[in-house]
Amino acid sequence: MRVAGAGLPSTLNSRLSTLTEGVLARHPREVGRAITAVENEGGCPELLRSLFPRTGRARVLGITGPPGAGKSTLAQRLAQAWRRRGQTVGIVAVDPSSPFTGGAILGDRIRMSEIYTDPGVFIRSMATRGALGGLARATSDAVDVLDAAGFDVVLIETVGVGQDEVDIVKAAETVAVVLVPGLGDDIQAIKAGILEIGDVFVVNKADREGADRTAAELAMMLDLSAPGGWRPPIVRTVAPRGEGTGEAVAALDAHGAHLAASGEDLERRRRRVRARLLALLEERFHRRVAQQAPGPEGLDAAVRRVSLRERDPYGAAADFFARVVPE
Amino acid sequence: MRVAGAGLPSTLNSRLSTLTEGVLARHPREVGRAITAVENEGGCPELLRSLFPRTGRARVLGITGPPGAGKSTLAQRLAQAWRRRGQTVGIVAVDPSSPFTGGAILGDRIRMSEIYTDPGVFIRSMATRGALGGLARATSDAVDVLDAAGFDVVLIETVGVGQDEVDIVKAAETVAVVLVPGLGDDIQAIKAGILEIGDVFVVNKADREGADRTAAELAMMLDLSAPGGWRPPIVRTVAPRGEGTGEAVAALDAHGAHLAASGEDLERRRRRVRARLLALLEERFHRRVAQQAPGPEGLDAAVRRVSLRERDPYGAAADFFARVVPE
Repeated sequence: MRVAGAGLPSTLNSRLSTLTEGVLARHPREVGRAITAVENEGGCPELLRSLFPRTGRARVLGITGPPGAGKSTLAQRLAQAWRRRGQTVGIVAVDPSSPFTGGAILGDRIRMSEIYTDPGVFIRSMATRGALGGLARATSDAVDVLDAAGFDVVLIETVGVGQDEVDIVKAAETVAVVLVPGLGDDIQAIKAGILEIGDVFVVNKADREGADRTAAELAMMLDLSAPGGWRPPIVRTVAPRGEGTGEAVAALDAHGAHLAASGEDLERRRRRVRARLLALLEERFHRRVAQQAPGPEGLDAAVRRVSLRERDPYGAAADFFARVVPE
Repeated sequence: MRVAGAGLPSTLNSRLSTLTEGVLARHPREVGRAITAVENEGGCPELLRSLFPRTGRARVLGITGPPGAGKSTLAQRLAQAWRRRGQTVGIVAVDPSSPFTGGAILGDRIRMSEIYTDPGVFIRSMATRGALGGLARATSDAVDVLDAAGFDVVLIETVGVGQDEVDIVKAAETVAVVLVPGLGDDIQAIKAGILEIGDVFVVNKADREGADRTAAELAMMLDLSAPGGWRPPIVRTVAPRGEGTGEAVAALDAHGAHLAASGEDLERRRRRVRARLLALLEERFHRRVAQQAPGPEGLDAAVRRVSLRERDPYGAAADFFARVVPE
């Protein structure tokens, strides 16, 4: 009979050690189950704590950009390049999904089928479920799982550009922003929003008309904003044909070398840790608020009063907050 | 000499009443200053509380969709249509902006120049500043300011699709999702993500090749997901030429009538109030956490310990949380 530890019931404890051992041995089924566990609301702190001593070895990269930029195909090409130099690769794809029904799209997985049969590559789509703040936390946890499982490179792929993606990208050491020529009249707005997230810029579908202009505009914007230090390189790729993949890998490597040489990696790590702690604290706060829901002093009662316009939202929030978090 | 009220210093109190009176009189300068005030971290609870009794009259509509869908042009056309029937219009445009430097893009304003000189229309771009959760809160506050100022219709325009936009769209009674033909290979993913947000779908740039297919695919997906009740209509527009604007207005009106007739508006209002209270609580929690930053028990110390891998993030977050929010 197993002895229960850390206050957990013995069955839970036994399942936890099976899961931990499975992840550390890089068994695909256990790795997948571990990520499912961290996707749940509140995650799986016990698992993450037991995996923690084995994390911190993977190189964590991010790839983001507007819809239609061809990020999945590029991710596939990058994974193939890393595999050729003997590195194992974990991919966490953060797909948009309905905030109400949950569930992720399988499109990315299907398009990545070429590398899907390689045991040195593990691909996982995250279900977003619409949990406030939960996605960034779950993504970081999934990265930890893949890191502990011994994948040399962990690639986070996010679709779209927004606060969400910025939060998620905070979990990566180096971020590649992928653009394509001729994305329409909101492109300027997109570029401005992601200009400072990108350590490397990729103009994908570079065989399309307008690629020169996109690259030139981007270079101009980078020149204008240049804060000294690292100047993000602009790489051109045609991902379906594999063109430019080598240059993209080299640019990502160069940024990694820059981080280490400049000592900026330590500052970035602190920023990542801070964002992660804040996400964990936020999730705990939401759970505490939810626990206060019933009763005349609860959240439901406050919602009702404000809905009936008996109370303004600011006053109601202040009163409720004072009850949950005393001075 | 003015007598100070509500515990505020007399100068602040006097500025507050000037601002409140200016907003209620719909002076553009004061309306703009009020929105600037709510954009700041923590917002301006005193102002919102004093405006609250005059809110609740505007019809609040949302317009969202992927970049390049032509939302701004469509918003301009809708505003012109509402103006023609004698309604005043406030527009809150939520632009993507750098999470690090803040600042919003002026592109939308420039493109909307046709209606920019009309005193019955007020257009405001929100600066996002990257404040965690702050954007949805600030957008709701800006809607309240415009509502209190007596604008008949308040239109929230958000660029992109993601958790962020979903949160922001929660402040609207009726949401129009704008799509365009041929947005690339991630379009399926986008559609799935926004399918349940849209009360009305607009296929803009409907003179483009592929419009029929986009509309047909959309109709099929709506049929598959149909939960009964309201079936979101699909409207085709060519916004630069004003084609389809009347149909879009009619579809938005029809949804408003459906909400009122079915009583669903009350349930939706409760959902909006709940999301708003949660955003306010979250912002307060972040401020409380930030106050705990210095000292060996503070957030900075926790960040340092986790960065040095002396502590795992889950344990550090649990300890810190217990100090800020006692059981």
